[in-house]
Amino acid sequence: MFGIIAVDFGGTNIRAAYFPSSQPPPTTHNKTATLADEGPDSVIARLIQAIDSLIPKDDVEFKIGIAAPGPLDPRNGVVISSPNLAGWTNIPLRDQISEHFGVPVFLGNDANAAALGEWRFGAGQGTDNMVYLTISTGIGGGVIADGQLLLGSRGLAGELGHLTIVSDGPVCGCGIKGHIEAVAAGPAIARNAVSQLEAGRLSTLKETLSAQGEITSVDIGKAAQAGDELALSVLEEAGFYIGHHLANLAHAFNPEVFILGGGVTLLGDLFFEPIRRSLHEHIMDPAYLDGVRVLPAALGDDAGLVGAMVLASQS
Amino acid sequence: MFGIIAVDFGGTNIRAAYFPSSQPPPTTHNKTATLADEGPDSVIARLIQAIDSLIPKDDVEFKIGIAAPGPLDPRNGVVISSPNLAGWTNIPLRDQISEHFGVPVFLGNDANAAALGEWRFGAGQGTDNMVYLTISTGIGGGVIADGQLLLGSRGLAGELGHLTIVSDGPVCGCGIKGHIEAVAAGPAIARNAVSQLEAGRLSTLKETLSAQGEITSVDIGKAAQAGDELALSVLEEAGFYIGHHLANLAHAFNPEVFILGGGVTLLGDLFFEPIRRSLHEHIMDPAYLDGVRVLPAALGDDAGLVGAMVLASQS
Repeated sequence: MFGIIAVDFGGTNIRAAYFPSSQPPPTTHNKTATLADEGPDSVIARLIQAIDSLIPKDDVEFKIGIAAPGPLDPRNGVVISSPNLAGWTNIPLRDQISEHFGVPVFLGNDANAAALGEWRFGAGQGTDNMVYLTISTGIGGGVIADGQLLLGSRGLAGELGHLTIVSDGPVCGCGIKGHIEAVAAGPAIARNAVSQLEAGRLSTLKETLSAQGEITSVDIGKAAQAGDELALSVLEEAGFYIGHHLANLAHAFNPEVFILGGGVTLLGDLFFEPIRRSLHEHIMDPAYLDGVRVLPAALGDDAGLVGAMVLASQS
Repeated sequence: MFGIIAVDFGGTNIRAAYFPSSQPPPTTHNKTATLADEGPDSVIARLIQAIDSLIPKDDVEFKIGIAAPGPLDPRNGVVISSPNLAGWTNIPLRDQISEHFGVPVFLGNDANAAALGEWRFGAGQGTDNMVYLTISTGIGGGVIADGQLLLGSRGLAGELGHLTIVSDGPVCGCGIKGHIEAVAAGPAIARNAVSQLEAGRLSTLKETLSAQGEITSVDIGKAAQAGDELALSVLEEAGFYIGHHLANLAHAFNPEVFILGGGVTLLGDLFFEPIRRSLHEHIMDPAYLDGVRVLPAALGDDAGLVGAMVLASQS
């Protein structure tokens, strides 16, 4: 039996935890700022520090699992490039960490890792075919196909935020027009609310905008819960597109369950109801939805960390 | 060693062939009309007849593989419904054929079977991650993921003609708006040419339309080869959408090769060039296209038949 040190890092934070028996919960964990602006060498030094502080004192052998922002090559352990990590181009992170600690290291895309975590220990347990979407600042994804994480030839599969949904829609963070991420992630929802306010539509969000200078999906959720019509219609619209997207994904992957995580999904039924309605409207044959569930993720912010642990445990 | 009788049938024809050693070419084959209007019982009787005439005389044991139009449930051997086969709703085709002949029968979706055929004996040989599209009257697909045909929970995965590409585009054969099939399959290409002629644009296709009362993608291909600008622009547009679609599929599946089959792809470079250009324009990161090829299918009309043989041989 190995112990596993799991790390999940992004543009903002490095989170690390020690799982002595390859399953949640961890016995110890820590969180530090990524300080991505300082560049790869500095971030890698902080990753090493975070791991170092969790090394088991009792001479137990351990492995390391790391979830990092993609695109990355999990088979060769290389971060290819990352919009949120300045200067990270073709960084052989796996080998650098492995050489430092002298133990096996496994690297995976963070959304793929979160899918793995939800599959083995969260809302997707017991299924063989699962589609996971995380909807927050961006939209990421991961697919379990016939009981295995779908990787593709270079491990870049499952980028489910970057499929077309509104062909002449806004430009996505990746530079291509009309992806679901550009239409239904948190910033798109907030932008829609602001543009409706600017067009003169009445809403309690007008005061929020004046007071804060911006609106977040959390503000929109609160206003929607209080019955604000603009807030409700903006969530309805985003839910419509996500549901349509899920129908496309059903045709491609035919999963038995969709798991939705990320900040925006915390809005609950106000978001899930329009999603489920639109999924049913856009499916080509009812056989695709026979017994299919659309569930909220169960592991919250820990999905990536748990998934990084799974990455190391199953290898 | 088993012999295999493979059958590929659709709304128009039943094709069957005997493969004594589980690989192409077959030693005997036949082709009959489906006469789909006569309903399932009558079609099944003709399927039985086609198979019967191919049974090896030398007491060799044999299995049967059948490729049929979907959606169908390959694990339970049931045709769920089929737009091109009148009255086919939840037909347990596998068991009916198996009981008649007393041998094992394997059933698969025709586009999935064609993908299998191209993978094992056609343009996709030697790859582990492949996306196959067949572009003719409709658009079908099949995915090989990490060395296995992607089936999904009920075997309905890989319906790659039914993903959104132009959200407010024309209604698809399946009833949903804006799928790639509705925008870039043969009928859509012909419809675009006709509507441009009706708008008064000059083209040699005008005479073809007057003489035949309709235009096919074959007519358009011929006119394009002769330099007709309308024909070229219509193919350019369809290629643009297919290439964009392939970029979406790259983000979802990250294949090492795209195989394009079906009648429309016989137009060759006139169609493949705009496809490849658009694929490169719409990819989110060049890593997705590193070494990736877009190839014409190699088995032509036999892909489904060879795939039905593979279905039976690998089970």
